[in-house]
Amino acid sequence: MNQPKIAIIMGSKSDLNVMQDAADVLKELGVDYEITVVSAHRTPDRMFSYARAAADRGIKVIIAGAGGAAHLPGMVASLTHLPVIGVPVKSSNSIDGWDSILSILQMPNGIPVATVALNAAKNAGILAAQILSTADEYLAQNLIAFKEELKRKVEESAKEMENN
Amino acid sequence: MNQPKIAIIMGSKSDLNVMQDAADVLKELGVDYEITVVSAHRTPDRMFSYARAAADRGIKVIIAGAGGAAHLPGMVASLTHLPVIGVPVKSSNSIDGWDSILSILQMPNGIPVATVALNAAKNAGILAAQILSTADEYLAQNLIAFKEELKRKVEESAKEMENN
Amino acid sequence: MNQPKIAIIMGSKSDLNVMQDAADVLKELGVDYEITVVSAHRTPDRMFSYARAAADRGIKVIIAGAGGAAHLPGMVASLTHLPVIGVPVKSSNSIDGWDSILSILQMPNGIPVATVALNAAKNAGILAAQILSTADEYLAQNLIAFKEELKRKVEESAKEMENN
Amino acid sequence: MNQPKIAIIMGSKSDLNVMQDAADVLKELGVDYEITVVSAHRTPDRMFSYARAAADRGIKVIIAGAGGAAHLPGMVASLTHLPVIGVPVKSSNSIDGWDSILSILQMPNGIPVATVALNAAKNAGILAAQILSTADEYLAQNLIAFKEELKRKVEESAKEMENN
Amino acid sequence: MNQPKIAIIMGSKSDLNVMQDAADVLKELGVDYEITVVSAHRTPDRMFSYARAAADRGIKVIIAGAGGAAHLPGMVASLTHLPVIGVPVKSSNSIDGWDSILSILQMPNGIPVATVALNAAKNAGILAAQILSTADEYLAQNLIAFKEELKRKVEESAKEMENN
Amino acid sequence: MNQPKIAIIMGSKSDLNVMQDAADVLKELGVDYEITVVSAHRTPDRMFSYARAAADRGIKVIIAGAGGAAHLPGMVASLTHLPVIGVPVKSSNSIDGWDSILSILQMPNGIPVATVALNAAKNAGILAAQILSTADEYLAQNLIAFKEELKRKVEESAKEMENN
Amino acid sequence: MNQPKIAIIMGSKSDLNVMQDAADVLKELGVDYEITVVSAHRTPDRMFSYARAAADRGIKVIIAGAGGAAHLPGMVASLTHLPVIGVPVKSSNSIDGWDSILSILQMPNGIPVATVALNAAKNAGILAAQILSTADEYLAQNLIAFKEELKRKVEESAKEMENN
Amino acid sequence: MNQPKIAIIMGSKSDLNVMQDAADVLKELGVDYEITVVSAHRTPDRMFSYARAAADRGIKVIIAGAGGAAHLPGMVASLTHLPVIGVPVKSSNSIDGWDSILSILQMPNGIPVATVALNAAKNAGILAAQILSTADEYLAQNLIAFKEELKRKVEESAKEMENN
Repeated sequence: MNQPKIAIIMGSKSDLNVMQDAADVLKELGVDYEITVVSAHRTPDRMFSYARAAADRGIKVIIAGAGGAAHLPGMVASLTHLPVIGVPVKSSNSIDGWDSILSILQMPNGIPVATVALNAAKNAGILAAQILSTADEYLAQNLIAFKEELKRKVEESAKEMENN
Repeated sequence: MNQPKIAIIMGSKSDLNVMQDAADVLKELGVDYEITVVSAHRTPDRMFSYARAAADRGIKVIIAGAGGAAHLPGMVASLTHLPVIGVPVKSSNSIDGWDSILSILQMPNGIPVATVALNAAKNAGILAAQILSTADEYLAQNLIAFKEELKRKVEESAKEMENN
Repeated sequence: MNQPKIAIIMGSKSDLNVMQDAADVLKELGVDYEITVVSAHRTPDRMFSYARAAADRGIKVIIAGAGGAAHLPGMVASLTHLPVIGVPVKSSNSIDGWDSILSILQMPNGIPVATVALNAAKNAGILAAQILSTADEYLAQNLIAFKEELKRKVEESAKEMENN
Repeated sequence: MNQPKIAIIMGSKSDLNVMQDAADVLKELGVDYEITVVSAHRTPDRMFSYARAAADRGIKVIIAGAGGAAHLPGMVASLTHLPVIGVPVKSSNSIDGWDSILSILQMPNGIPVATVALNAAKNAGILAAQILSTADEYLAQNLIAFKEELKRKVEESAKEMENN
Repeated sequence: MNQPKIAIIMGSKSDLNVMQDAADVLKELGVDYEITVVSAHRTPDRMFSYARAAADRGIKVIIAGAGGAAHLPGMVASLTHLPVIGVPVKSSNSIDGWDSILSILQMPNGIPVATVALNAAKNAGILAAQILSTADEYLAQNLIAFKEELKRKVEESAKEMENN
Repeated sequence: MNQPKIAIIMGSKSDLNVMQDAADVLKELGVDYEITVVSAHRTPDRMFSYARAAADRGIKVIIAGAGGAAHLPGMVASLTHLPVIGVPVKSSNSIDGWDSILSILQMPNGIPVATVALNAAKNAGILAAQILSTADEYLAQNLIAFKEELKRKVEESAKEMENN
Repeated sequence: MNQPKIAIIMGSKSDLNVMQDAADVLKELGVDYEITVVSAHRTPDRMFSYARAAADRGIKVIIAGAGGAAHLPGMVASLTHLPVIGVPVKSSNSIDGWDSILSILQMPNGIPVATVALNAAKNAGILAAQILSTADEYLAQNLIAFKEELKRKVEESAKEMENN
Repeated sequence: MNQPKIAIIMGSKSDLNVMQDAADVLKELGVDYEITVVSAHRTPDRMFSYARAAADRGIKVIIAGAGGAAHLPGMVASLTHLPVIGVPVKSSNSIDGWDSILSILQMPNGIPVATVALNAAKNAGILAAQILSTADEYLAQNLIAFKEELKRKVEESAKEMENN
């Protein structure tokens, strides 16, 4: 198997029910990925070595999901020059998601995290594909087709509603 | 002049005092950009044609800043398959920035916007460079050097404080 | 069938369980309407042509409902000179409705959206009727009767509670 | 002088620095208005008689601005069948405008208030004109020209920024 | 039956499941009350006459509960010199209760509403009794006994937990 | 000098610039008061003895102002059966007043605090007078006159604005 | 039995379902504790004597949990020089936990409360053990082992996810 | 010089104007400290080695201040078994402090951070001293005297206000 270009990591295995959407959409778009658990707070060494080694292993984009005081995306961004996409997870210990969002989004100057909507792992997957597609015309065509399909489904609902 | 790969757009010329940071950091990182005003609400046709034409002109990443009910980043994302980075601007009509953040961040599934912190145009510029660097080793080295410089400055402050 | 004067549109067919209330109250008030799905993010062209053509087709008021980063009402308002009523929908991806409200309400100067309460599609329908009634005395009488009926029901509850 | 069709009222004379924008844009659009102070809490009788008499005097739309626990727009809406536009004012006693917004926006079913953005009296004026324009083709043309002018100014800023 | 000194009113009969607590604690404290529905928005005339007549009928304190854009407590306070206690109700159309709280609490200078916690109708009843007790030593003794009973129950729980 | 019936206390002398409004309006209404500093956190014993002794000294109503984690009003309410009015103060260490409001307003069942708007010490003073007026017809007349004067001033502003 | 060094107290027995976690983790770490109910608002005298006596009885750290307008942790901190750990409880009368957090966290200068996350009684227990461990090498070793175990479990989940 | 038992660290030298208060109160209480800059995001290696080495160097408590997406306190807590006190700093890039608070406070189970109020570095210093005082009777006496002095100052203000 080839080394995938996208890594999906999450702070806890309980985040998988949200983060699976990133994996699913990447599969749909024909992009390989690896997926695992990396906890900023419980496995800081693992986070360090994982983030530090990612670029050399051939990873191009890291998708990191976490909830509550969600430090994983930002810390990974501090440890690599790769683009990092953060997914705020509305986990059981989160205050309606506000803590997850703010602790991922509000990174200081110098260390960006590309933040997507609360629980929007699907969008994280699409964004990762868009990033790769800036140098992959074939993938760009897949994304264009993906958008077409979104459009087609709305037009279908529209017709249905108009005819009711 | 070559066509730049990064476009910086903003909803109003009054956003320039924030968005200039994106331009400045791109210059520092050696990345060309174009910069202009595109208003989702006052020039919707211009937004349509600008976003639709961007990929064909050779743009690879669009940075879009806006404040209040900030629709520019999300609408541009709906009109192109390129990655779009959104900068929530704390404009004078914004409620402490919350409206800017939520109307950029909370995009529906299918249409991601890579959102950075409130007013963090500098991080938008860095993120755009990170995206290009996934296929540009020279730029990747610039980003690594940029991070080194951030580190050096903190270590300098640390020494200063320890010796006081 | 005559062309209705009121258009009810929504960003997703899943918004119908909220937006149906607008349709129902318009029927109760004797006002014709059309209803369909128009997604700002998934069908931007459709949104453009729909909003641009509305006035010429005889539409007088557009009711637009959407949730999360809800750009539909504001974008439609940017594309027509007709009054646009926005219904913030507390959709499943919304943060308790705050994103829906702020991204509809906080429109910049020049492009108003008449925003009603969260999920208050019924009030959107009434407001649309009030707008038409400024030039339709018969409809004005219907609205006065509608208010009388609201009053009657409260007075009934009051009597019931006082006699318990 | 003819009876104007638009009434602008506000809870306190200190709201005038915000509400004047409604008057100014109406003048610009060629729409007559009357303007006065009506306090829900300090002059409830005046509010009652003012709101009850408005329709018979020929008023077609009422713009009401207030701050803090802002009851004026909603109470006026309860007393008339005319469309009422609410302007949440960020007055000195308001908590960053949140109280003003929520107490105007969150009206119960049956009694809508067409709410505009915080301090957006200008948009209230435009919305009032849009409402009248549903039965006034001349005013509709003014609104279309107004939108053109907004567009022209953005295009001008865009050119300026591109040429810098 | 004597005219009670306490009036409990609410904006909708659906508020009764919350407001009943006020009635129950008043009964427990031996204070008569009357209870009914008065809607600021649907029965403004009834609200006017009710509030204006209250003092002359012998009412000493008014407890008013409402949710969403909750104008009843503040409007009643504007119509009488009696102390008005406001109960913010977390009704189905409320945004987690924030709208109810802010539109009751944030009254302008001159027209206070004595606001209690969200849904805390029981505390509204106790506060009404405290107000009457400033001129009723017998009721003051009841309140002192009521506090003693609260204390006794906590001490009982404490013993139970310590012995587990 | 007679023992006043109203006590105004505050958590810190820096709260006086807000709390003075309570004193001023009581003077205007002809009600005696005493005023002092009582800190829940820095002088808990003083708070205990002050609150416990208040009723016996003839105090009828306690007005307590505090900011941040504002425990003074609630703790005083726990120590006396007198009605306690809480004034949330937007002190320098407060987060826009939200902490002050919530820690005063959200009292548990059994121990009410009559909370007024942020910084609304004037309304606290009026409310205290309203409470005394339930057994003091002369004071009730003063309050009615006070309301008349509020009305008169608004009517004056209204005339002025109408004639401009 | 020896006097335990840790006291766990809570404002209501209904808080036990949250606060039990503190007890459980202390048991796991081999630290004795006592646990009881102390209500700031319903048993202020008990709170006073409990907090004042704690240090002399040999208590070294107090863990206090409460919800809503949560005054227990801050008041206990005002009554002792011992470190006090506050657990904001999302009780049934709390507004999504915001009131609990702010009324515990936002203590004025001079009187700290060591606040942990919403409902995070487990973390309160660990923090109490960490405090004791500053003078107890054996307990420090237990905490190091506890952290190792946290790490081991994440690494296990990681392996499992990678192999799926 | 002896190795101090307290370490004060902050994410940026610009945090010093807040964090100096921790140093000052520790000096006042007679406790030695060291102070420096450690950035989680710009110097992650430095943070790792600093936090990992702290216990062996004799540090007993770490005070960490940071603003925005404030990861320093939580990451340090993940890297040591020492108690970590977090100071949310309202830095220039923070959204009124909410991001700073939530990203420090809302730590997951297993890794507590003892959070103090926004900008409350003084309380962080006092809390650190309280922790040391659990095994240092002399320091405990200093803390008791410190509390006495707080009380004395309030009593002084009280007398002054009463005599005015």
